[in-house]
Amino acid sequence: MEIAMDANRNAVFEKWVRALDLDLEAPLRAGANYEVAVEHAGVLQVSGQIPRTRGGIAVTGRVGQDATLEEGRRAAQICMLRALAVVRQTLGSFDRVQRVLRLSVYVQSAADFTQQSEVADAASEILYALFAPHGGHARISLGVYQLPKNAAVELDITVATA
Amino acid sequence: MEIAMDANRNAVFEKWVRALDLDLEAPLRAGANYEVAVEHAGVLQVSGQIPRTRGGIAVTGRVGQDATLEEGRRAAQICMLRALAVVRQTLGSFDRVQRVLRLSVYVQSAADFTQQSEVADAASEILYALFAPHGGHARISLGVYQLPKNAAVELDITVATA
Amino acid sequence: MEIAMDANRNAVFEKWVRALDLDLEAPLRAGANYEVAVEHAGVLQVSGQIPRTRGGIAVTGRVGQDATLEEGRRAAQICMLRALAVVRQTLGSFDRVQRVLRLSVYVQSAADFTQQSEVADAASEILYALFAPHGGHARISLGVYQLPKNAAVELDITVATA
Repeated sequence: MEIAMDANRNAVFEKWVRALDLDLEAPLRAGANYEVAVEHAGVLQVSGQIPRTRGGIAVTGRVGQDATLEEGRRAAQICMLRALAVVRQTLGSFDRVQRVLRLSVYVQSAADFTQQSEVADAASEILYALFAPHGGHARISLGVYQLPKNAAVELDITVATA
Repeated sequence: MEIAMDANRNAVFEKWVRALDLDLEAPLRAGANYEVAVEHAGVLQVSGQIPRTRGGIAVTGRVGQDATLEEGRRAAQICMLRALAVVRQTLGSFDRVQRVLRLSVYVQSAADFTQQSEVADAASEILYALFAPHGGHARISLGVYQLPKNAAVELDITVATA
Repeated sequence: MEIAMDANRNAVFEKWVRALDLDLEAPLRAGANYEVAVEHAGVLQVSGQIPRTRGGIAVTGRVGQDATLEEGRRAAQICMLRALAVVRQTLGSFDRVQRVLRLSVYVQSAADFTQQSEVADAASEILYALFAPHGGHARISLGVYQLPKNAAVELDITVATA
């Protein structure tokens, strides 16, 4: 995965968005009665993102049953690009990201699917590449029973702002 | 839902408490070996709340199977009023809430129940009404497999304090 | 459980490590593409810990079905000692812990297992004993559907650093 530098973060991000055929031009809004993100005292909390695309939820169902590991990883990538679009629209620029603090990844799992970390890695890789050398982050990954709109994956991130 | 002002937050809160027939007079204590909330450096973390009432857990089981969406929403309201009672008893007053940062809602879900956001909205609406115009918050909502005491909903909030 | 004092935190911790027959001598590393912990602005976020031992995952499967409550509690203890090993290696010393802010405990649960709080208590007790009188913490405990590597328990902690 291409490593972004300060000067080309937007270009690298846009390339990923196109590669996944996403449309993140319009400002992202919360799907219900909350805010997409809240910034306070140097910390930005981004709300949970599911793999919404213009055609609906890109990957639905249980990973390991209705969706493959690879599809789960693609869902995690879409969620992460959405979260990053929220970061950029809220802060005005990726340059205001001082570092990433935490990523939480929730995978709608089959009863015996235990590769939540492998799904989450697909999201983590994007953070490392976009914010190098400050992309390192704490992480949890869980296998949950359901998610809003039957999404296969949901994730949220917390970043320190400059 | 009635929008509270600085001067009448307590009155509005008490009205909601009575409408749900709750008894939040006595100080809330943790159900086990932890604290109901921790305040540090301008951030208050409130522990997970389940819909406890004097008669037991008000709504139990899986939403979408053992409990309806409406019952799930009522459970979320009870959890939120309990969380707010913790906020008030810990800070001494709602006036010390600078803004709400984050709400996490966990819904014990039927295998095919995907309206976790609609359950969470019932809790979010209370935050918007009580802390207007600073009630906006980041949010995640998840469908979990079980919860302590078979509660239908658990939630926690993080607030910035003044 | 023995209560640690400033002067003997390491000794008490090592005693617990030996009692659970753990090997935490080598630095802990993340199991995948993230960091074991991130410290920023006086807050340390420790990544999710599962009950890894030199022999593999110590307790796997669903608590209340494949594992007993007692086994779940032991899993939570192992997770917590690992989290604390991460705290010490990241901060250099337990003395840099100002207080514990939050503990989140995720229990891979049988469909009808509702004692997630009792599992979590086993982890909370360690925090109270090691950081007395500053071990009090906010907490959530959830019953999840699966966890990485089929672990019975995962947990993460957030601490304020001095």
